[in-house]
Amino acid sequence: MKALYLQNGKIFFLEDTAIPEPREDEALIRVRLAGICGTDLELVKGYYPFTGIPGHEFVGEVVKASSEPSLTGRRVVGEINCVCFSCSFCRQGLYSHCRERTVAGIKGRQGCFGQYLSLPVANLHPVPENVSDEEAVFVEPLAAALRIQEQLRIRPSDKILIVGSGRLGQLIARTLVLIGCEISAVTRHKKQSDLLSDLSVFPLVESEVEKEWADIVVEASGTVSGFSLARRAVRPGGVIVLKTTCRDECQLNLSSLVVDEISLIGSRCGPFPPALRLLAGKMVDPRPLIQQRFRLDEGEQAFARAARPGTLKVLLDPA
Amino acid sequence: MKALYLQNGKIFFLEDTAIPEPREDEALIRVRLAGICGTDLELVKGYYPFTGIPGHEFVGEVVKASSEPSLTGRRVVGEINCVCFSCSFCRQGLYSHCRERTVAGIKGRQGCFGQYLSLPVANLHPVPENVSDEEAVFVEPLAAALRIQEQLRIRPSDKILIVGSGRLGQLIARTLVLIGCEISAVTRHKKQSDLLSDLSVFPLVESEVEKEWADIVVEASGTVSGFSLARRAVRPGGVIVLKTTCRDECQLNLSSLVVDEISLIGSRCGPFPPALRLLAGKMVDPRPLIQQRFRLDEGEQAFARAARPGTLKVLLDPA
Repeated sequence: MKALYLQNGKIFFLEDTAIPEPREDEALIRVRLAGICGTDLELVKGYYPFTGIPGHEFVGEVVKASSEPSLTGRRVVGEINCVCFSCSFCRQGLYSHCRERTVAGIKGRQGCFGQYLSLPVANLHPVPENVSDEEAVFVEPLAAALRIQEQLRIRPSDKILIVGSGRLGQLIARTLVLIGCEISAVTRHKKQSDLLSDLSVFPLVESEVEKEWADIVVEASGTVSGFSLARRAVRPGGVIVLKTTCRDECQLNLSSLVVDEISLIGSRCGPFPPALRLLAGKMVDPRPLIQQRFRLDEGEQAFARAARPGTLKVLLDPA
Repeated sequence: MKALYLQNGKIFFLEDTAIPEPREDEALIRVRLAGICGTDLELVKGYYPFTGIPGHEFVGEVVKASSEPSLTGRRVVGEINCVCFSCSFCRQGLYSHCRERTVAGIKGRQGCFGQYLSLPVANLHPVPENVSDEEAVFVEPLAAALRIQEQLRIRPSDKILIVGSGRLGQLIARTLVLIGCEISAVTRHKKQSDLLSDLSVFPLVESEVEKEWADIVVEASGTVSGFSLARRAVRPGGVIVLKTTCRDECQLNLSSLVVDEISLIGSRCGPFPPALRLLAGKMVDPRPLIQQRFRLDEGEQAFARAARPGTLKVLLDPA
């Protein structure tokens, strides 16, 4: 099969690499469409050690599923954490923190930037008919956006600041507007601002952020300066949700967190079924976030495009 | 009146300084007993700029209260944040974060290490008859311990680690055992360990702390190393409550908070009425935490004693 391959911080196109061999509890999936995410760009920069086929956002079609033949031919999306169901964390229901986990395209398991991938059947969710591939490819990051509401009660009267209005920030805005909150988002790009305004989210540049304005700040920029801005913007007793990884260490004054009673909440992967319901119900339309579509053999250009500041979602079409 | 006075990092005893003049909405209170807390020691070290009479833990008797004469002669404890009720934070109910606040013995207002202090009538809570002065003097830090449960739902089946078993750690342990949780606490002193064992709290030395064991860690040591230990001990998806201020900045890897979905929660002052109820109902007995009692004119020795590692509560008797 055709696939992209990451090695030593470089993306290669492979014309003919082996199709994955699914284990008994796994399905073989033909990838219909895949998306490039910030984490993929961090892998290329070498922030995490990964060699192999990257990619974890996709929609595909089940080719083979020995343990659940009824899935064959179904269009699916797939959760990326492949877990053991038996370690102490799994037994506490903390599946996404499984001690033995592999993560598609990120850790110990091939990802979706090829024509096929294999995933445990337990990870798959059929996609409703009225959800297009262009929508379904956003399920994984949309679920990550919804994780915030799994962790934190958000009130319709809360004032929220989103720091970073890129791929993930835009999806987070799309979920939080559904609560009725007053939302501002920090942006540096005209296109991002226009997309926010369409949602009645107020676009701001950094210098316009008001000190201690927000009940909740979602840090989705993955930068230390983004965190500092979040700290400045949150009111006493408020919450900063850390939604993106950031390689650099951050100098933190713990005392000021105590005195101002600030909460920091780390937030990672989220639930797929609610994301699929929001897409099927047309409550969230992620399609305006599509920046450009590339073929697999254009993988290098696709990654270069995705890495340009202000770029929204770059899709890979393995057809 | 007699009082202790803090200036340039030194504690002086003043034989005859002016009795405070209460404003119309304030009461004049004769101090019956006061306690030295970690924050007082930090003030002496110069971590916060404060000059004047320090002290914020006390039980006293109302001498005069123009706006509420019925309080006269009542034994009271007093909340330490004196607020404006009109700034944007007060209007949101965030009184302890009032932008204009003064704080008894800490910020812009004389404290309780003298024979008298004045406080707004709104800050006072009468002490039930069956609560002794030796118990009531612990209301302020006991309320601070209860603040944790105001911020965070704690389940009886949660596993909790308390880092630091000094004055505040011991009070926190006394509130959390009432939930039925399995609790361990890190301690370096025999006396602290014995007090914990009496509560069925398991005393540990640092090297015995098990990685990722705790659902909730309460950092009550106020040290960077205590925070590192807390980070190590908390399970993925768990919570670290930051209960004590710590002067030093801390190098923090924000990515690891995201990947492990850790929450940090800063926690400060708490509610007095529940603390008084726990004392009146004899659910918490803080008296074993009393280390030693000093007269006001022994203030310097009292502070020196309180600063020795492993020291529990040092009381000041202004009689």
